[in-house]
Formats: sequence, C-alpha cells, structure tokens
Amino acid sequence: MKKGNTVFFKKPPVITSFAAVCGSKESEGVLGEFADITLVDDMYGESTYEKAECKMLSSAIALAIEKGGLEEKDIDVLMSGDLLNQIISASFAARDFNFPFLGVYSACSTMSETLLLGAMLINAGYVKRAVAATGSHFASAERQYRYPLELGCTRPPQAQWTVTGAGGCVISDKGNGIKIVNGTMGKVCDFGVTDVNNMGAAMAPAAADTIMQHFKDTGTDADDYDLILTGDLGALGSRILKDLTWEKGYDISPKHVDCGEMVYKVIEKEFQGGSGAGCSATILNSYIFTKMNAGLYKRVLFAATGALLSTVSSQQGESIPCISHAVQLEV
Amino acid sequence: MKKGNTVFFKKPPVITSFAAVCGSKESEGVLGEFADITLVDDMYGESTYEKAECKMLSSAIALAIEKGGLEEKDIDVLMSGDLLNQIISASFAARDFNFPFLGVYSACSTMSETLLLGAMLINAGYVKRAVAATGSHFASAERQYRYPLELGCTRPPQAQWTVTGAGGCVISDKGNGIKIVNGTMGKVCDFGVTDVNNMGAAMAPAAADTIMQHFKDTGTDADDYDLILTGDLGALGSRILKDLTWEKGYDISPKHVDCGEMVYKVIEKEFQGGSGAGCSATILNSYIFTKMNAGLYKRVLFAATGALLSTVSSQQGESIPCISHAVQLEV
Repeated sequence: MKKGNTVFFKKPPVITSFAAVCGSKESEGVLGEFADITLVDDMYGESTYEKAECKMLSSAIALAIEKGGLEEKDIDVLMSGDLLNQIISASFAARDFNFPFLGVYSACSTMSETLLLGAMLINAGYVKRAVAATGSHFASAERQYRYPLELGCTRPPQAQWTVTGAGGCVISDKGNGIKIVNGTMGKVCDFGVTDVNNMGAAMAPAAADTIMQHFKDTGTDADDYDLILTGDLGALGSRILKDLTWEKGYDISPKHVDCGEMVYKVIEKEFQGGSGAGCSATILNSYIFTKMNAGLYKRVLFAATGALLSTVSSQQGESIPCISHAVQLEV
Repeated sequence: MKKGNTVFFKKPPVITSFAAVCGSKESEGVLGEFADITLVDDMYGESTYEKAECKMLSSAIALAIEKGGLEEKDIDVLMSGDLLNQIISASFAARDFNFPFLGVYSACSTMSETLLLGAMLINAGYVKRAVAATGSHFASAERQYRYPLELGCTRPPQAQWTVTGAGGCVISDKGNGIKIVNGTMGKVCDFGVTDVNNMGAAMAPAAADTIMQHFKDTGTDADDYDLILTGDLGALGSRILKDLTWEKGYDISPKHVDCGEMVYKVIEKEFQGGSGAGCSATILNSYIFTKMNAGLYKRVLFAATGALLSTVSSQQGESIPCISHAVQLEV
C-alpha cells in the first residue's frame, strides 16, 4: 500500500543479521567498539584503494550472511551500489557471490535505497532473503572526486571526510530482528548549491523534503521516533536540516542525529564530520542496529542522503541535485 | 512468486506508452522511421555532450508520459540510470520531474533492470505507474570511457559504436499494451575478458547465463518466443551467445536478434554494431514495442547485457564482470 510517496509493508521484512567493516581512522571512534572488522591498514592487503574498498564491501556482505547462520545459497538477491564510477566496488563484490545482483546508484543514500528496495521485494513475496550493502573508501573517493592525496591539498572548513568502511545486512521475510515497517521514496531536490566541498548544505533540503513527506504520509512527527537518523549531512548540514524542518513546523532537533557527526571521535580534524556511502552503512549496521536489538531505540527513521553530482557536472557549472530515501525501522 | 531467479507476476504490469529519441546518425537506420524524435544536431541545443544526453533522456521520459495521455502527477516513480559517472544523465533528468526517483546502475542492461524493478513494484501494488528509462550519447561515452574525439583514434574491428539516443516507457497496473509476464534477475558473470574494445565477448556469457536460467525457470525454450532480444552484444557477441547456448543444448539462433546489430544501417562503419544503454532503450521503445502492439511479435524475451567495468578497473588490470537481466514481454 502506498500513501503519498511512502510504501507500507503489510508483513514487515526483518533485518536478521548485519555486519560492518571499518578503516583504522574510523576505528578510533564508536565503530572501534561496534564494527565487526576494524582494519589496521586501510589497504586491506590489496594493491589499490579501489580493490580495498571492494574487499571491505565483499567482507561485510559475507559476514552479514555468516552472522545470520546462513550460507550463500540462502540469499536470493544482492542490492548494492557505491560511489565509484560505474559502482565497481559493488559490481566486483557481487562477482564473489553466486546470487543475482541488482545494482543501484544513489550516492550516499545507497544504504536507504537498498533497504527500501530489498524490503519491497521481500514484502511482495518475490524473494525470501536479500542483502543490502554499500561502502566507501577515503582514498578512492579523494582520488576520484577531488585531488591526488600526494598533493596534500588543504580542505575548506565546510568539508567532510569520506568514511573508509562498508556495511551490509540480510533482510528476511521472517525471523527476529529489526522490522522495516515502511519506506519513503525520495525526490530529487536541488537548491542551487554549487560548492562541491559543502555537501551538507546541498543535501539538507533533500533530507528535509523526504523526512517531512514521511511525517505527512505516516501521520507521525518527530516525537513518534526515538531517533531520526541521517546519513552524512555532517555538522553544518545537520543544522541546516533542523532549520529547514523547523521553518515548516517540525522540531526534529531533540531526535535528530547524523551518522557523519557520530563517526569520528574528534570532529575538528574532519571539519563537518564523516561522509560517503560507508558512513551511514557502517554506523547503521553496527552501532544503531545493536542498540535497537538491545531495545534502546525502538523506532528509528533512517533517511540517508545522496549528492547526485559528478566531477564532470560540477566542472560544467551545474548545481548539485540531491536525494534522500527513508525507511522506518522498529523493534 | 519466484522460481530459480525468475519472478512471476500474477497480474502482469502493462507497458502502456513508450517513446524514443535518437541522434542523427541513428536516424539513418530503423530508428529514423520508428523513433519519436530524431535529432539533426546531436548537441540537441545544449552546450555539452553530457547535457545533450540528459536532455534526450528527459525528453523521452516526458514524451512517454504525454503519449500515454498522462501528466506528471500520474507517475509514482521513475527508475533510471545511465553510463555516465554517477549516472548524472538520469539524476539530472529526474530533477525535471516532481515524482520520486530510484537510481539504478546496470550499464547497458539498465533498460531491462528498470523494466524488471518497475514491474515488481507495480505487481506488488506499491505504485500504479512507473517510468523506466535510460539513454546514452556517443560523444559523452567516448570522452569518458575512451579517447577525446579530437584525437581521431582508430577503432579496432571488434569495437562497437555507442548509440546516441534515449528511450523510456510507462508501466501501469492496468490498461492496454505489452505485458511484463515475468523477469529473471541476472548474476554477475566474468569469463576473464580484459579487452575493453570487445564488449560483445565480455557480455555474451552473462546473456547466455540469464537466458538459460530463464528457460529453466519458466520451462520454456527458444521455440516458445517470437524473438529473443539482446541489448548490445553486437555481431561478434551475438555469435558467441549463440555458440554458448548451443553448447548447452539450446538453439536460439532462429529467434535471436541483437539491438546493436539492428540499429545502424551500414554495420561496417560501426564494426560490430551499436552499443550503450541507449541502444536497446531506443530499439525497444520504438521498433519492438510498435511491432508488438501490431501483433507481429507476440512473445519477446528481452535480455539486455551490461559490462560492469570502469576505466579505473581496467587500468588496474581487472577483467570485465558482466550482467544481464531479462523480462518476458507478451501481447
């Protein structure tokens, strides 16, 4: 059933197992305690950053399956994507497994798009178990989107730091775990921001649009949630989101937390905090799901945001269109 | 209901309208007669190739909606993707419309992945109308994947020519048109091909895998179809596909046609034929659907293939993982 842009699940699919892998820098923060694998060397034994990113994603997928007491043959489909051109991390990770693969691209909102699509397929009875996963790597993102690391370019204060990490989960048609109750499909929002170092400002309107659409469609507001979790708006983007929603009559500030703000221990060094598809993927698939399973958060609205730009579109003077998909999670 | 990797639709979603836009070179062939818009200048009044590609896609989406007698408000979701880094054509085209957007990436099999996902969402009752669309542009693909056009590089005989064009369709929960009866989700196949100029050879195993999986899951074989349509294997890839399936006991040769082989009038100049996400998108959303609606083809298996490589993965010595998703179309 759909109301507005929100699809409601009659028999809510269940997140039965999850796993996260993170880099060495990330392991200094909350992920050090909650991630399943913390890397000492971000190369992960590979010869290139891109191969390391792919290996992290593949490990997270394999571990999520294993932690659920499942095998490869139990999985019906993998839904994944990532930030690299032609989503090579996801495609090459999918090569490691003998189940179908549906590639998605939604930049840093990939985790919520894959959760939404996975839940849709399961609730409809098409598949019994789907894996939703994504990740990112600081060094491969810098190389592709910004400057060679060797140049040692300075970062402006509005910048964020791409998280090295990957996370994934198994969504099942039955079992114990976190339920995906409904999901809101996002629309592309573009407020005309052109500063590629200010993703928070570009993405905040998309988060605001989807979160408010979700409130409207579900007849809820911020008070109904234990947590309204965004993906990687960072400190500045987070403040903009709170302002934008407050202007429209929603005070989400007591409930809102951003994964980008949570991921690093010392936020000054990373300026506005973490970013990248791996940011929300690691925090969600370790810290958040663990706390939810422990009953500390009962109802979470997860709305990751993605900036749908490329280096080419920016060089051609385009602004940054953004999107946010949301899923409502409950225990 | 799922059997193997094939999802069967109880109440088959219907392709109620479709549209295609193609470039000037493409209009010399079959698309000249069947496409809705044929460009005289492939820049389409824009300042860059990428913006022209985006405009073609946006036009195809708008036209498919209009031809169905529908308006923007009648559409529940757009599913789209393309070949450009971070699927900017699809994301920027989605910005033109006020409905939700689910971005996918499946290289040149995007048309079949979006048809499959769109049909899944409609059959489940989540949405009433979805648009599935994709496209490509020769010049933007050359710039991104190969060499600057200005260099005038020679092309090896196994190469193909990226189609300038876009196509899209409206999938509805009811109405008259072409039914999507079932769909087979593809797995990533990698036979170790590393030659980026030989996409046909790289992709043929994925097409063979999905087509044979489809036969197995549906209890059909080549004789049951009027057409087994692949996306852009080209002349060489087509031959490899026929060989691979023949080796396994399926003779698809009397029924198999490849959009890449159909799209250009003179195939010598383009060597193995057309390629790109726009290749199957334009042929399917004009010629094939028109012929199906006229009753000339009653049952078509459409299995577009995608090569999931990037320039980075190839430069790092990786082989080319490929995928093919398939949908069974009937009138």
